[in-house]
Amino acid sequence: MHDQVFNFNYCTPTKVLFGKDSIKGLPAEMAPFGKRVLLVYGGGSIKRSGLYDEVKRLLQDFEIFELPGVEPNPRITSVREGGRICREQHIDMVLAVGGGSVLDCSKVICDAPFYDGDPWDLVLDSSKITKALPLFTVLTLAATGSEYDPAAVISNLETNEKIGVLSPHNYPKVSVLDPTYTLTVSKRQTAAGSADIMSHIFEQYFVDGSCMVSEGLSESILRTVIKFAKIAYEDGNNYTARANLMWASSLACNGICQVGSEPGAWVCHAIEHELSAYYDITHGEGLALLTPVIMRYTLNDKTVKRYAYFAHRVFDLPLNDDLYVTARAGIEALEAFFASIGLPKTLRDVGITSKDKFDAMAEHACKCFPLHQAFVPLSPAQVREILEQSF
Amino acid sequence: MHDQVFNFNYCTPTKVLFGKDSIKGLPAEMAPFGKRVLLVYGGGSIKRSGLYDEVKRLLQDFEIFELPGVEPNPRITSVREGGRICREQHIDMVLAVGGGSVLDCSKVICDAPFYDGDPWDLVLDSSKITKALPLFTVLTLAATGSEYDPAAVISNLETNEKIGVLSPHNYPKVSVLDPTYTLTVSKRQTAAGSADIMSHIFEQYFVDGSCMVSEGLSESILRTVIKFAKIAYEDGNNYTARANLMWASSLACNGICQVGSEPGAWVCHAIEHELSAYYDITHGEGLALLTPVIMRYTLNDKTVKRYAYFAHRVFDLPLNDDLYVTARAGIEALEAFFASIGLPKTLRDVGITSKDKFDAMAEHACKCFPLHQAFVPLSPAQVREILEQSF
Repeated sequence: MHDQVFNFNYCTPTKVLFGKDSIKGLPAEMAPFGKRVLLVYGGGSIKRSGLYDEVKRLLQDFEIFELPGVEPNPRITSVREGGRICREQHIDMVLAVGGGSVLDCSKVICDAPFYDGDPWDLVLDSSKITKALPLFTVLTLAATGSEYDPAAVISNLETNEKIGVLSPHNYPKVSVLDPTYTLTVSKRQTAAGSADIMSHIFEQYFVDGSCMVSEGLSESILRTVIKFAKIAYEDGNNYTARANLMWASSLACNGICQVGSEPGAWVCHAIEHELSAYYDITHGEGLALLTPVIMRYTLNDKTVKRYAYFAHRVFDLPLNDDLYVTARAGIEALEAFFASIGLPKTLRDVGITSKDKFDAMAEHACKCFPLHQAFVPLSPAQVREILEQSF
Repeated sequence: MHDQVFNFNYCTPTKVLFGKDSIKGLPAEMAPFGKRVLLVYGGGSIKRSGLYDEVKRLLQDFEIFELPGVEPNPRITSVREGGRICREQHIDMVLAVGGGSVLDCSKVICDAPFYDGDPWDLVLDSSKITKALPLFTVLTLAATGSEYDPAAVISNLETNEKIGVLSPHNYPKVSVLDPTYTLTVSKRQTAAGSADIMSHIFEQYFVDGSCMVSEGLSESILRTVIKFAKIAYEDGNNYTARANLMWASSLACNGICQVGSEPGAWVCHAIEHELSAYYDITHGEGLALLTPVIMRYTLNDKTVKRYAYFAHRVFDLPLNDDLYVTARAGIEALEAFFASIGLPKTLRDVGITSKDKFDAMAEHACKCFPLHQAFVPLSPAQVREILEQSF
């Protein structure tokens, strides 16, 4: 299961400032890049929490322009607007304050001024990203890992597309990870964020060949999230729980858990992107309800050892002589964990009450992700079955 | 033991090119930095292995200058010589091909041209390092982790000092990690390198408060080294074993295993540096013989839980109700592992047959490292006792 190390290239140049009050280091990091800052944020929770005022106070020597109102599942329309401001105002750098959506949106905003066309082209073809404004981030939700990776997911509501874009130009320069900013995150978002972190690991860990070091790191992150998501769900103010989730989220998605292993096909993300493209549901909730269904659907002689060892190492379940018993117990333990933090179990739980779009979603998922190369290769018809079983 | 996440800053900007033939990517990485390259290497093993010829062939579009003959426990005299060549020949970048000694030496060579004085000053006071030539590395020994960290250890035989220097300017730009270059490493160096990797983990892992993710990563690296060091020791040509050791070595020392945890005091390294400064012994051998002695010496009510869980998680030993039983079994298992790959057990085994220098070494170790802040604080008198027990 893990006696291989595949070739890889790896570099995460982002500097992390982690911990309470680490934002104080931000002005010194930003100063070398200029004075004109585009501040990007979401629905205004940073104003209620006081973080907005804190940022403005810290950056009093800078000239601040603002793009508020970035949506969950950030839209290309916001990217276009941010790109326009960067050009017109000769912005030197972008500061994203928020969760993964704000950060993802900001990444493509940083790319936009250097491309003479619609930024949606950059999402469709990352090779068109040739340069980017420096990006700084202040994270307020432990979930997507965007603060520490080169990826962004942007939605286009006109075309019902939600597409991921990766570019080495899109690593943040510096990310401020202060768990205190996540103390006010709701139970629901805490649970969804935790499911997102775990799903990032699953996508990279449920593969045929994986490097032993990466495997151990992945299991460590899963155990950490399972332990501390429960604590943070029950006591939002627990700094230690928030801190563990935050660092887990950053490491889960930046490649360090995957290096040396076979690449995953990102099956669950492929299907979930369709759900939230069509129905604008919460990403982590979609992932949580799909994961056990996908695991059961793909449980076979090829995957059973991996799923059984997952159960053993992450949930401390005994290894049965019949690995199928252990594997199924692991899937049940995962379901029970998700339920314990209030995550939905079915598509109907998240308000998807029609099967109308199943065919279109299944087709598109297989078009956007290499699902025919997955641990268990999946056809559109099989993705449709998974959707049926999730209903 | 792990319910804390301490504040930290973290950034490793080095790009890793990992795997067989990954060196082919090197010329494209170097090209943007100029044409004039100082090639630094050691005792000529890279000529015997053919790697020297391969490098010269790959870099035919560059102008190559050479500094051969860098010693194990690299000396400040070599740094001075390299610095002189860089200045006189207007070198654009340095390419280090070798093990940790060659890489460490090259780091300070990169710093030297930007300092108007003796480079030994830079070792004594890293704040004098203000700029560095770009450094590229091709690793031939999995051990020190120098290929992926900002540290260098330089010896001064005139003053009997072996001192570590850390500077953010000293990260390599790109490190080529091709396990095939380590297939010819001798049994003895394979064992010593593996002990070095494990010791880097121990120095960061045997602390009071450690972050759960870092702890799990550390345990994963220890299990990986224990498994694959044995295989590589017995079958040097095993690529998979070499690959696992190589990636383990890089992650073990660049901070990623330590972030969020209390800093370690590097007790074993503190004492070993004295041994190799005075007696020029093999670093990893010194670490291997000291580690069990230090663990036994520091086993007490504060450390017993950590040592017991180490035994349980890394060596799969059962957790006894009396944690001292488990902790002692873990120390014995570690000793047995070291013995199984031919590592020495005593100072006499490495040719140190006199206690003459014990006082001086103990004093100096406590001067160079914060041993009074260790997991179990140590005075010079106590370090002397550890040396006695290692004799």
